[in-house]
Amino acid sequence: MACCLHGESFLIVDSRYIETAQTEAVNCQPTLAQGSLVEKLRSIISNKNHSKFRLGIEANHISYDLFATIKSWSKTIECVPTHELTEKLRMIKDDKEIQNLRQAFQIAHTAYRQLTKIISPGMTESIVAGLLELELRKAGGEGLAFETIVASGKRSSLPHAQATTKKIGPQDFLLIDFGTKYFGYCSDLTRIHLMPDAHKPTIYKVVQEAQEKALALIKPGVLCAEIDQESRNWISQSGYGEYFGHSLGHGLGLEVHELPSLSLKSRMEIQEGMVFTIEPGIYIPGQYGVRIEDVVVITQNGFQFLSQPGS
Amino acid sequence: MACCLHGESFLIVDSRYIETAQTEAVNCQPTLAQGSLVEKLRSIISNKNHSKFRLGIEANHISYDLFATIKSWSKTIECVPTHELTEKLRMIKDDKEIQNLRQAFQIAHTAYRQLTKIISPGMTESIVAGLLELELRKAGGEGLAFETIVASGKRSSLPHAQATTKKIGPQDFLLIDFGTKYFGYCSDLTRIHLMPDAHKPTIYKVVQEAQEKALALIKPGVLCAEIDQESRNWISQSGYGEYFGHSLGHGLGLEVHELPSLSLKSRMEIQEGMVFTIEPGIYIPGQYGVRIEDVVVITQNGFQFLSQPGS
Repeated sequence: MACCLHGESFLIVDSRYIETAQTEAVNCQPTLAQGSLVEKLRSIISNKNHSKFRLGIEANHISYDLFATIKSWSKTIECVPTHELTEKLRMIKDDKEIQNLRQAFQIAHTAYRQLTKIISPGMTESIVAGLLELELRKAGGEGLAFETIVASGKRSSLPHAQATTKKIGPQDFLLIDFGTKYFGYCSDLTRIHLMPDAHKPTIYKVVQEAQEKALALIKPGVLCAEIDQESRNWISQSGYGEYFGHSLGHGLGLEVHELPSLSLKSRMEIQEGMVFTIEPGIYIPGQYGVRIEDVVVITQNGFQFLSQPGS
Repeated sequence: MACCLHGESFLIVDSRYIETAQTEAVNCQPTLAQGSLVEKLRSIISNKNHSKFRLGIEANHISYDLFATIKSWSKTIECVPTHELTEKLRMIKDDKEIQNLRQAFQIAHTAYRQLTKIISPGMTESIVAGLLELELRKAGGEGLAFETIVASGKRSSLPHAQATTKKIGPQDFLLIDFGTKYFGYCSDLTRIHLMPDAHKPTIYKVVQEAQEKALALIKPGVLCAEIDQESRNWISQSGYGEYFGHSLGHGLGLEVHELPSLSLKSRMEIQEGMVFTIEPGIYIPGQYGVRIEDVVVITQNGFQFLSQPGS
């Protein structure tokens, strides 16, 4: 739990994390809570002895209960719901952050290349996931950014399929969506891998073109919603509109889902320093699905890839 | 998002999860949200056309914002904060759940035994974590219940240490805390592994005895707080009281942290069908730490182990 009060910043942790917080936290005071974190917050606030003050509370992240608890402490505290303060600070990445993200994607590609050398028919989806995860660690990744998705054959129509004990056949293709971390920064990449006797699915080309349509628009000043619309239009014109249910992309950084959202509902403009995924997909229930996901960082006039498209 | 209304239950999901929900969800209607989940909830409620009704809202899990949004929809909806409804339903496990948990622990032990055969000095903590994770999948586990902890030498003093690229020496011992899932049910186990030239740390015996003290008390009717106190007293009498900062244990099931909490603050009694960890630990900052974690299921008169203590 983090708390900023009149220029002082506190990172409140329990005993399990205090040694790490003291080593790693910058620009704040790592503070040990002997009991609950929220009781420690209460004692920090009451030590301040202010006659009256306003406390901003991140209303999307704090439970109704915690909000109610803090509000009940004192009538002199005015609790003000705030929105996306942290998210907006995190949305624009600095050079050091971009460097960490770039390295996370290097690791992801190294591991994926290695995986494609050792994968073979008869392995289960779950073993393929485990092998990839081990390669990510060998290449320098810090564990997983999210649960690895490996979906073969028909199961590729489930956009967020867990890797199961289903055996992979020689004619299957695999949808693999995976992420690791580097200094806490997440990679996120989706690839379609063809087993030896598999044919590239027809919709692959449509999805690839939908990604290209989006990329052609990306530069500072363009609306996120416009980019989603462009990609979605292409999929609709190709006859698969009803099979692209999710939004086109999302920001990523210390978390795997950050701002901006590349969706029809977004009102945001693309800005220099944003990092986000472009991941159109088509999922035909009971048949199969394809998603291609790459990641860009926005520059002054356009973008650069953090991932290596087509590999 | 789940919602129960006058005997009807809805599981509201977006397009990424609808096919899975339709296959796996029981006793409820999987419902596709085209837009946001909460808008779908709104339309389900307004279709009910009730002049007035009360809506219970799980106040520990729902953000202040979401609570405020739902409240703003209509003056005829009375939003009532509820607490631990789901947690209390989940706390007592039925036979099928215990069977799944037992299997999750079988998998965990099989993988750990396999790991101890292939681990060798010079490997990094991270590679050891990756090898263990792969063995968990080989033994039938469904990915991870939580981020694997592998802490060698001095790093064992950090109770929740991430596995790093630190190389493991022949004289190190490792603290390994890991979990997998089986049909969604989590295992959670902590072991100390001695590398070839390592000595068992002195505090190991104290921690083991603290676990035994706790186990000797466990049966229906005893207070959770009493069990924590018994274990804690032993560690204090042995001179290490200040180095046992966390609570003694926690329930586990579909989530890795469930009720009951085995802590001094708990007011709960042990009941038949509860499943929880017993995990005393001693962590001496800058030196080293030891935790031993086993798991029990409560029977009519006592308990059975789900994990295999001492292995």
